[in-house]
Amino acid sequence: MEYKIALLSGDGIGPEVAKQAVNVLESVGKAFGHTFTFEEGLVGAIAIDKTGNPLPDETIKICLRGDAVLFGAIGDPKYDTNPDAKVRPEQGLLKLRKSLGLYTNVRPVKAYPTLLDKSPLKRNRIEGADMLIYRELTGGIYFGEKHLSEDGKQASDLCSYSEEEISRIARMAFEAAKLRRKKVTLVDKANVLETSRLWRRVVTKIAKEEYPQIELDFLFVDNAAMQMILDPRQFDVILTENMFGDIISDEASVIGGSIGLLASASVGDEHGLFEPIHGSYPQAKGKNIANPIASILSAALLLDYLGLNEEGNAVREAVDIALANGVVTSDLDEHSTYGTKAVGDYISVLIQSAE
Amino acid sequence: MEYKIALLSGDGIGPEVAKQAVNVLESVGKAFGHTFTFEEGLVGAIAIDKTGNPLPDETIKICLRGDAVLFGAIGDPKYDTNPDAKVRPEQGLLKLRKSLGLYTNVRPVKAYPTLLDKSPLKRNRIEGADMLIYRELTGGIYFGEKHLSEDGKQASDLCSYSEEEISRIARMAFEAAKLRRKKVTLVDKANVLETSRLWRRVVTKIAKEEYPQIELDFLFVDNAAMQMILDPRQFDVILTENMFGDIISDEASVIGGSIGLLASASVGDEHGLFEPIHGSYPQAKGKNIANPIASILSAALLLDYLGLNEEGNAVREAVDIALANGVVTSDLDEHSTYGTKAVGDYISVLIQSAE
Ligand SMILES: [Mg+2]
Ligand SMILES: [Mg+2]
Repeated sequence: MEYKIALLSGDGIGPEVAKQAVNVLESVGKAFGHTFTFEEGLVGAIAIDKTGNPLPDETIKICLRGDAVLFGAIGDPKYDTNPDAKVRPEQGLLKLRKSLGLYTNVRPVKAYPTLLDKSPLKRNRIEGADMLIYRELTGGIYFGEKHLSEDGKQASDLCSYSEEEISRIARMAFEAAKLRRKKVTLVDKANVLETSRLWRRVVTKIAKEEYPQIELDFLFVDNAAMQMILDPRQFDVILTENMFGDIISDEASVIGGSIGLLASASVGDEHGLFEPIHGSYPQAKGKNIANPIASILSAALLLDYLGLNEEGNAVREAVDIALANGVVTSDLDEHSTYGTKAVGDYISVLIQSAE
Repeated sequence: MEYKIALLSGDGIGPEVAKQAVNVLESVGKAFGHTFTFEEGLVGAIAIDKTGNPLPDETIKICLRGDAVLFGAIGDPKYDTNPDAKVRPEQGLLKLRKSLGLYTNVRPVKAYPTLLDKSPLKRNRIEGADMLIYRELTGGIYFGEKHLSEDGKQASDLCSYSEEEISRIARMAFEAAKLRRKKVTLVDKANVLETSRLWRRVVTKIAKEEYPQIELDFLFVDNAAMQMILDPRQFDVILTENMFGDIISDEASVIGGSIGLLASASVGDEHGLFEPIHGSYPQAKGKNIANPIASILSAALLLDYLGLNEEGNAVREAVDIALANGVVTSDLDEHSTYGTKAVGDYISVLIQSAE
């Protein structure tokens, strides 16, 4: 098959790590008989520098006509530290998510055997943990009506959800659970919030009527924040609303021991965007020291999204082997001499030789 | 001095652990020359059984005329597992907080040297952690207007705060920081929420004008959920709104290794209520195995509240010694033969002999 990928490398280490993800996709193409073509678009600080706009219209067009978007990272200190900056690199990503209708964020969290010593949690708590977090991305209190009284002494934020917003992400989470350990945990606060009670009703109905083979359980968000530390292995697929997902997925991101391994997908009904969760890390730019694995794993999520699950698994297996063999950048092993490119090359070669 | 304490022991292990807290207060009385008198009130399941009401008016009166409320625990499986129960034990506590105007919840979290091996976090992360969490208890989204559309397909919850609600708890947190490491961390989501921006403005103004000696810093709640695991030692006093406080304080509760040691205070302008954070643990009732330390430490918070800081510290020091010497119940050491009463007696004797 032939696939057209929109490549938005962005700022800082974005281009370096995205380049390794591109290499990996090209290796997958050779090994499995697909063709990936890449069309590059500007986004972030580099787009502001060149066009004045963190998300030029041309970039949106490139994304809309691609089969998927591979995203690097954005952000530059010259905008971040300037409180008067009128346009900010991050606005590019927010606007892009909106333009593409990306309402679900997916974050895999996995404890890699060779990295257990890097986790802040004890080995016996984390060994074997492997979860997917489905976070609603365009609703809830972050996007609700805001109000500040004229005298500035009273403020409010509205959290609201509709059945439609809940059911579309819920089905995605149940579909993912089908391919895994067949368990979905809904995180909410249904003992106090009306929106949480709506989530519980809608999700329970979908589970009963459409996914009887999937186990559905419920956790209040405060308890979930505890359980994530006490026993992260209990989770298979977590499903939750926007703000709870923000908190729980960031909490989960540190238990595996390295943020340099974490990828994410933002998907909607017609488009999908795949990126590492780490930032643009400008201090490391151009030094060939950035860890490319999160970007490479985001390419694996992109393959899953295209329906190429076998191919996605091949990428993940190659990453597992690189980690097991210590072919990693110095953030994971201070004695390592492998650079960004060497790690990417090793994984690419593994994928081609596996077939 | 003479102090009148309202004693609400409640259900399950509540009476057993509260009894040890009473013993400890009586020892403090002897050692420091105070008199504590206790007036008992019904609350929870036992109050429903005897009066039909989880919080009888007589109990409220007892609390209102006391100098402070010492609370045990509430909850009974015969109500918890019955979805048709019209009155529930927990309603007693919620109503009591409201009746007494308790708008601030305080939770100390400390890593005890002898319990580091019980923590899910690695020793080097947690050693020396010692924080106080100030959570706003009567405002925010838990108490805001709720709405469900007639067709049941759309729901909302309103989060709102006023300057007054923020400033009264902020001053309490700054006062606490004065007696500690002089640092307050405000946890919010000011990059997205209007209410969080109001919190930031109000707290910043109070810090500048009234507490120039206190360092104030800010963390977004998602980052705070990460930092609590990565580096809990960075926190001295955490100040936050109701829901963020619920999540962050429950997350923090598991890092010390035992929920059986955690006490909490709920305070307002005129009243204070002090309780362990653990529940009524009905399975352990009457077996002399419940850990009384959380209840004893809640008595220490009660002493602080009465302005008896030296006395509160004496209780905490005695608890430290009991833990260091292994005088603990079997939840903390499976080989221990000390029961609830033996641990309470040991701590009481220490307090009297220290003077
Ligand atoms: Mg976040
Ligand atoms: Mg809670």
